[in-house]
Amino acid sequence: MNTFSRSFSDRLLSDYNYTFNKNGVCGERLANRLALLSGIGLTSDSGTNRMGFSKEERCAKDQVIEWMEEAGLTVQEDGAGNVIGTLYGDDQQHVIMAGSHVDSVPNGGHFDGPLGVLCALEIVEAWKETGYKPQKTYEVVIFSDEEGSRFKSGLTGSTAMTGNADEVKLRSVKDVNGQAFGDVLQNVGLNADGFFRAKRDLNRVEVFYEVHIEQGKRLEQNNLPVGIVTGIAGPCWLEISFKGKAGHAGNTPMNDRQDPLVAAGDFTRQIPKLPREVSESAVATVGQLHVYPNGINVIPGEVVMTVDIRDIKKESRDFLVSKVKKLAENISEQHGVKLSFQEKVRIPPVPIKNSVLMTVEKAVKLEHIHPFYLPSGAGHDAMMMGRQVPVGMIFVRSKDGISHHPDEWSSLNDCVQAVHVLKKSVEATMERGV
Amino acid sequence: MNTFSRSFSDRLLSDYNYTFNKNGVCGERLANRLALLSGIGLTSDSGTNRMGFSKEERCAKDQVIEWMEEAGLTVQEDGAGNVIGTLYGDDQQHVIMAGSHVDSVPNGGHFDGPLGVLCALEIVEAWKETGYKPQKTYEVVIFSDEEGSRFKSGLTGSTAMTGNADEVKLRSVKDVNGQAFGDVLQNVGLNADGFFRAKRDLNRVEVFYEVHIEQGKRLEQNNLPVGIVTGIAGPCWLEISFKGKAGHAGNTPMNDRQDPLVAAGDFTRQIPKLPREVSESAVATVGQLHVYPNGINVIPGEVVMTVDIRDIKKESRDFLVSKVKKLAENISEQHGVKLSFQEKVRIPPVPIKNSVLMTVEKAVKLEHIHPFYLPSGAGHDAMMMGRQVPVGMIFVRSKDGISHHPDEWSSLNDCVQAVHVLKKSVEATMERGV
Repeated sequence: MNTFSRSFSDRLLSDYNYTFNKNGVCGERLANRLALLSGIGLTSDSGTNRMGFSKEERCAKDQVIEWMEEAGLTVQEDGAGNVIGTLYGDDQQHVIMAGSHVDSVPNGGHFDGPLGVLCALEIVEAWKETGYKPQKTYEVVIFSDEEGSRFKSGLTGSTAMTGNADEVKLRSVKDVNGQAFGDVLQNVGLNADGFFRAKRDLNRVEVFYEVHIEQGKRLEQNNLPVGIVTGIAGPCWLEISFKGKAGHAGNTPMNDRQDPLVAAGDFTRQIPKLPREVSESAVATVGQLHVYPNGINVIPGEVVMTVDIRDIKKESRDFLVSKVKKLAENISEQHGVKLSFQEKVRIPPVPIKNSVLMTVEKAVKLEHIHPFYLPSGAGHDAMMMGRQVPVGMIFVRSKDGISHHPDEWSSLNDCVQAVHVLKKSVEATMERGV
Repeated sequence: MNTFSRSFSDRLLSDYNYTFNKNGVCGERLANRLALLSGIGLTSDSGTNRMGFSKEERCAKDQVIEWMEEAGLTVQEDGAGNVIGTLYGDDQQHVIMAGSHVDSVPNGGHFDGPLGVLCALEIVEAWKETGYKPQKTYEVVIFSDEEGSRFKSGLTGSTAMTGNADEVKLRSVKDVNGQAFGDVLQNVGLNADGFFRAKRDLNRVEVFYEVHIEQGKRLEQNNLPVGIVTGIAGPCWLEISFKGKAGHAGNTPMNDRQDPLVAAGDFTRQIPKLPREVSESAVATVGQLHVYPNGINVIPGEVVMTVDIRDIKKESRDFLVSKVKKLAENISEQHGVKLSFQEKVRIPPVPIKNSVLMTVEKAVKLEHIHPFYLPSGAGHDAMMMGRQVPVGMIFVRSKDGISHHPDEWSSLNDCVQAVHVLKKSVEATMERGV
């Protein structure tokens, strides 16, 4: 273990409440494994670079495979590089899956992804220690390239497993370094043909559970270690262009202008008012905005921006999309600028079945934690899996809501409580289904 | 003459009203010369590339020098490459200057600059033809690198002549191709030491006149060939930064955001209301805006924009600057974002003396043109010269207000009328001073 990993593990254990070591779950083991993964792809900022399909992601997968095998799992890998460690039960007609990913954004943190994989694996360790023999088959999964930094996409592994990969698009895409999709795969021992054969029959899967850091501050604000995810918001990305008339900033009188940036300003300032008109969980954000030609002394000719619109229910999300469009139309009319829009992405939100929510709520209550419901605004592998099978998600408190950054942090107490909640949820599903 | 120049000349002459050929002024000569210069640095878009201190600018200067010498002027060049063609009068204690520049922006038009130089020269041709002997000394000037595309500055030649060059800055500056200032000068037979010695005693100069295309639509809207410039607006460039808190666009509830782009939107939409509160000629523009990190699914952490603020009077311009700052402060408070600003440029506006305005107005009336006053929002060599000597400017109607573009166009009728107005203004100054 390198120096960073050792201090990472020490930091995790420094305030650990050992009473959470129970029912075979071991905080030290979880801390040790998080720490060992944190050393793979370590950056000079104490963050991690484990881009999807990189040798660092490969190395992290291989490390987890070693632990899986030690824990008695049968490990297989599909054509997309998704790793599946299986504990066969007597009942092989019912499969319960749990997991997440081990890739990261550039200079990302050490919890987003690995925590979900290691929590899923810790359950197997706990069962081994207590002698619990699960009746149904249990799979621990590592999905490839969840973050999508390489191809500016995301959920690559889960997209392949669920048969949602866009073959035409991927066969022509280049990664951030200009390398073709097939070549990128070959660097880590995979190939494009195999990738597109990774689609799997998921009929036997009863539920996929994912533990993930919250990447927000709601749990912290409510002083709770874990939360129950009510649904995974599907984003709609609406690209909006306002076109006016470029001109010299000095020689064009104020009353003879069609300035698209003035219009865009009026638009962006009104966006925050719209989500609350549709639901409590809806959000809308202008994160990207480009001005053309963007010269200090030139009245802009065009402004192009993208509005990210999300909610956990399709109806309210789509209602919000229509409200954003209506606002853009009104602004275009009021400011005399030409409007055009293009939907770049519209992913259906994934609702979470009431029976799954009840199963997780029961598990939360058994741990004497107040059940707190919150939406997931970000996409996760569970979102893609949710297109085919029931899913459940457990969020873990994130310090200051920071994620995708070296400062990402969740206390070991919170992480281990998430293991207990996941374990009780899985066991309940083993016994009673969802 | 190449094919483009020939068709350019044909186009100029196609609707020329030959009654404007009078008092020795010759429209064909002016058209021919504009056309010949248009062929130097011609681009595939029918525009021109004559960057300051390029071989194309040099070539255009050499062509004009040839015409100057043919017209009987004594030609000198200073260390900054400014070309001065002198017609010595009996009275060498009073000098009247007129001119402009022959460099262009990349893929620029064929009137911005050359027209002012050739109008100034056409007067000498007219005097030669009519046998008029000016009492005072008359100088036709070509200033180097007015546009400033090379060093992202501008007015380089007039800055050197007036002693306003920033030696420390220029000695360390690199051009758009990464070449040092001194090396750029050496490419065209100049050198940095000579450049900084180009400062000239301008005490004997009574006035500098500049004819220039309007680069706006006011004359076109008022159906007038020329206009009298009331003052040259000095720009203030105020860089404004709003800092908020970056976050995940999906996971951050609407009521827990400090989005600097929402604040910047509210700011840019209110900017157009401010200039009319200080004067009719004031303008303010947000032309450049950068969002950080500018990711579709990331709430921006910072927005940096530059406000270009201009007016022809220092008091009203500075009042407008303070109003813009006040607005930024209010926005920062209302939206809970952190504000910082930095003044990147604050150039004093150049007012035009009443006596010069009267001289030009008289000349305009003698040509039976309705005297129309308008401000110059853009900077010109006359702005720099105006720091040391009285200046006068005559604007020529621009088709559709287009400039810095291959489509830049002024009719020969308008150009020749500008020659007559300039000529009568110069002659009046010869006879009565300013």
